[in-house]
Amino acid sequence: MMAAYPKLQLALDVVALKSVMDICQAVADQVEIMEVGTLLCLSEGMEAVRKMRKAFPDHIILADIRIIKAGGVLADLAFQAGANWVTVMSDATQQTLEAVVKSAKNYNGEVQVELNDQWTWEQTKGWRALGIDQIIIHRTAELKGLEEEEAWSSDIFSVVKRLHEMGFKVTITGGVTPADVKRFEGIPVYIFIAGRAILKAPVPQEAALAMKETIEAVY
Amino acid sequence: MMAAYPKLQLALDVVALKSVMDICQAVADQVEIMEVGTLLCLSEGMEAVRKMRKAFPDHIILADIRIIKAGGVLADLAFQAGANWVTVMSDATQQTLEAVVKSAKNYNGEVQVELNDQWTWEQTKGWRALGIDQIIIHRTAELKGLEEEEAWSSDIFSVVKRLHEMGFKVTITGGVTPADVKRFEGIPVYIFIAGRAILKAPVPQEAALAMKETIEAVY
Repeated sequence: MMAAYPKLQLALDVVALKSVMDICQAVADQVEIMEVGTLLCLSEGMEAVRKMRKAFPDHIILADIRIIKAGGVLADLAFQAGANWVTVMSDATQQTLEAVVKSAKNYNGEVQVELNDQWTWEQTKGWRALGIDQIIIHRTAELKGLEEEEAWSSDIFSVVKRLHEMGFKVTITGGVTPADVKRFEGIPVYIFIAGRAILKAPVPQEAALAMKETIEAVY
Repeated sequence: MMAAYPKLQLALDVVALKSVMDICQAVADQVEIMEVGTLLCLSEGMEAVRKMRKAFPDHIILADIRIIKAGGVLADLAFQAGANWVTVMSDATQQTLEAVVKSAKNYNGEVQVELNDQWTWEQTKGWRALGIDQIIIHRTAELKGLEEEEAWSSDIFSVVKRLHEMGFKVTITGGVTPADVKRFEGIPVYIFIAGRAILKAPVPQEAALAMKETIEAVY
């Protein structure tokens, strides 16, 4: 039986896929999920998803399109381009969530809900009722600079635990470094996302290995 | 002095710009704003905005990217591609809205807030304080089919009036037809959006003219 280490997701929040494709290739063995970030989806459209699907046929490809409305057609678009997973914001109406879940079923895909500031525990029950079992927690809604992520709020650990007890698999994101991973020791995280920590590293492959090794040491 | 008729905006909610470019050319004289819809932005990326900018140098180009997070970089992306206006969801945090407004100032652009179900009057004051003066009201969050828009709710007219009194310019959207325009007689609408009513018409140019003439007859 495989150890249930948290997975590592590489976030491509860039304007041009070409600028990071070499890095993707170099770190592919350390990464389970390749994320086509919102910025890249809007910059290059679903062509970026199609290229990632082709380059990494065995990886999970996530289209981080942050659906908020018109979820049915947008989810269809991403799944048709080859995405396995799509993201929806917690502010989406139940009607939109239903449409996204329906699309995911048609394409054998999965749906992740990203928590925005106004999310409620009441909402999480509705998500579970729809069969959604993945949630994303991002520590900062708006980045003003590369080094300005907020600190992990002290109650994030209990939130992750409670969501886990409800049956959710939780993704943690927001400038995550190996030092951040250590802070989550004992907390049931499903996925850690790394973006800049890998993309901006002097040697991305080493940075990815360090993330992976830290995850395996901590869990 | 020009009569202050509501403007007409053509919404391109399609997967391929190529499929509607001929229609855009045919109706350009009737339309003040060309909207690159969310679906098109995600399908073809900012290339669609660049192509529209080039094809219609004198029109207002709106990138309907429905910003919810990371607004600074996303707004920059759209403005750099040639958009004059970008959309933000009412669920965006004040921090995100500030970043979008800052980006708009840098590019001499404008910001439209689209109301999602949970919007509050309290929020609208924050938007005005940031200098945002455009609001979008869409009658339906999720379309399940082409003919399933909700009816205009009876209080939408008073909402538009109150927003207008606060200094907002209001866009009305959601399958708008000439018959819908007539229902808004006396209500201070800034923009009517037409998508399917023009794109799916047997003769799009006639449909655009009918919208324009109805607007001028009603206002």
